[in-house]
Amino acid sequence: MIDWQQTLGTTTRGLRRSAVREILKAAVQPEMISFAGGLPAPECFPEELIRTASAGLLDGDQARRTLQYGESEGVAALRAHLGESVSVPTERVLITSGAQQGLDLLGRVLLDRGESILVENPTYLGALGAWRPLGVRFVPIPMDGNGLCTDALGEILTRERPKFLYTMPNFQNPGGSVLALERREALVTLAERHGFLIVEDDPYGDLRYDGEALPSLLSLAQAQGIGDHVVHLRSFSKVVAPGLRVGWMTGPPPLLNAVLTLKQATDFHPSTLGQRIILEVIQDPRYPAHLHHLRETYGARRDAMDAAMHEAFPEGTTWTRPQGGMFLMARLPNGMDATACFETALQEKVAYVTVDHFTIDDSGKDTIRLNFTNASPEKIREGIARLGRLFSSQ
Amino acid sequence: MIDWQQTLGTTTRGLRRSAVREILKAAVQPEMISFAGGLPAPECFPEELIRTASAGLLDGDQARRTLQYGESEGVAALRAHLGESVSVPTERVLITSGAQQGLDLLGRVLLDRGESILVENPTYLGALGAWRPLGVRFVPIPMDGNGLCTDALGEILTRERPKFLYTMPNFQNPGGSVLALERREALVTLAERHGFLIVEDDPYGDLRYDGEALPSLLSLAQAQGIGDHVVHLRSFSKVVAPGLRVGWMTGPPPLLNAVLTLKQATDFHPSTLGQRIILEVIQDPRYPAHLHHLRETYGARRDAMDAAMHEAFPEGTTWTRPQGGMFLMARLPNGMDATACFETALQEKVAYVTVDHFTIDDSGKDTIRLNFTNASPEKIREGIARLGRLFSSQ
Repeated sequence: MIDWQQTLGTTTRGLRRSAVREILKAAVQPEMISFAGGLPAPECFPEELIRTASAGLLDGDQARRTLQYGESEGVAALRAHLGESVSVPTERVLITSGAQQGLDLLGRVLLDRGESILVENPTYLGALGAWRPLGVRFVPIPMDGNGLCTDALGEILTRERPKFLYTMPNFQNPGGSVLALERREALVTLAERHGFLIVEDDPYGDLRYDGEALPSLLSLAQAQGIGDHVVHLRSFSKVVAPGLRVGWMTGPPPLLNAVLTLKQATDFHPSTLGQRIILEVIQDPRYPAHLHHLRETYGARRDAMDAAMHEAFPEGTTWTRPQGGMFLMARLPNGMDATACFETALQEKVAYVTVDHFTIDDSGKDTIRLNFTNASPEKIREGIARLGRLFSSQ
Repeated sequence: MIDWQQTLGTTTRGLRRSAVREILKAAVQPEMISFAGGLPAPECFPEELIRTASAGLLDGDQARRTLQYGESEGVAALRAHLGESVSVPTERVLITSGAQQGLDLLGRVLLDRGESILVENPTYLGALGAWRPLGVRFVPIPMDGNGLCTDALGEILTRERPKFLYTMPNFQNPGGSVLALERREALVTLAERHGFLIVEDDPYGDLRYDGEALPSLLSLAQAQGIGDHVVHLRSFSKVVAPGLRVGWMTGPPPLLNAVLTLKQATDFHPSTLGQRIILEVIQDPRYPAHLHHLRETYGARRDAMDAAMHEAFPEGTTWTRPQGGMFLMARLPNGMDATACFETALQEKVAYVTVDHFTIDDSGKDTIRLNFTNASPEKIREGIARLGRLFSSQ
């Protein structure tokens, strides 16, 4: 017999099964209206574009290139195209198996046990999940409606020397906030002054429904000649299709070089078929219309959710109306415990996720994250009505 | 400025750029005949099967399932099919982004710094590359024409307590040897007696050109009621297409559970499109004919290389005639240094890889690994003639 207690390594003891992925499994029952996951709307996938692309890539000589081993960096033409979009050369773009792999690889090349990193609180639980097994200490930065509080950050930096700061400046997960322009500028200045890296995770930037886009942290740093302070992560999971597993990153060469070497040892390279489909789709003349349709659809769903919550949620509930992305966050009144209501919600065939999964200190049991992209406006109204009844009866 | 020396973590210091992948890049020049890589023959990809599969999977309702987020375990129907083939339930099968990802995840859940693992010497450099950054000690097991020497292993086990033993029992990379049946039995007995795990990596098992297949270490262990001592890794990169990045593993539940949790945090799941294409292809009635054609083609190429070496290589060269797989290994006479000849070989437009990249002690500079699957018999004869002239002139 193998003694598993003895056999599994230290890393394993830091692992936690992803709460959201487990909730997603519970939430696939028929009739369930799930606001729990972060799923795009399958009826909005650019199926026709993907079908056309795939057929061409699997034809004749193309097929041989599409199906053979590829370079660990990713498909060169895709890297060149993406590099141009953020004013960096092809050599500074690395394709990853979704942006999640970028987070994993970054943590592994940068972090040693006991080191500290700065994270928004609450923050994306997939980032916590990727870095927690490495035995690092998460230093929380307070958030408000304008993103991470740079004043508080400045104060934290008087006593902490973090390896990096992780932020989602656009439509943050779970809160939906956008980091205000003056805070973006202050953050870049702090990074230069204190010599830390910024990891800018931007999976939702292309999903803006109102207002004007703000410059990325990468572009602000580039303008100040300190582009090397920013690692910039992107994904096609929200704007094309997650099942293809294509994300990308750009960052300073010494770091990208280490990430590439680790990636070679990790899984050689991302699916060539997936990468080449993405390249064809984003160059397809119909792609802008697809993006437009996606924004219209998701914007209407956000509005439907917001309106339904005004109708149904108990007085004293507060929530954000995000300008984009996939989520809004609602805080229930009187410190109501949303984790305690979760089982009843599932019985009522509606699912959400509580924000304690996204916080460093497990706070946020009175706060829920609601996804508005994966259900129709009708389903959203029905699901929010069910939640409203549940929370009003507590 | 960021001080990269200070910023990159301990793991990074253990990273080495994969020699073979760098050689592959050098070897893509026109007119180069490369025996260096481990590439399948692109003209043998089952293009028509893949095209049919892909078109169906991207059509209508199918498309929405193919393009959405999937389960971290992999596509359930594929797992069930693969589990059946090795007599394990679906729950014990995990799909990975190529078998390489299985090696990476296994190392990360099992290994702590300073621990030792047993490896064949020489062994697959991708395994060394995956585990070296974890700071483990590789304990070499001597090899001969019948695979790893179990007598020597028994002796090593009197003084070492390894976390696991890594072996490729079928057509080993780089040597091409097959682990003899009595040694397979002895190895399983040793694993039980000494309480260590066997990691059985079998990417080439379906590529047998002569002789009878031997039972896997997994099946031998299962027959003795100690199946939990074996982790079994497989790949579709050699029999279908590497660009799809689909491999799989089965192993004992406590270990698989840890691997799954880590995989969630690493990249969520492998490409759903790739997984579903593989499932369609291996269930296609034309698949057995594809495998037959692949074996015929590769067997003829192995024979062409063997015959050409008899003609062209200097007297005193010794090599194996493997019963399957993708490689043979040749030892040059009089301690000739094949690493020193490599640049000249590239000038002569022929590439190989030296075995020192595959050894623990960097020995094997007089030994080369030659891939016979990626070039036509004509190219093989020409390339071997070039190498023969080069080595004969030393």
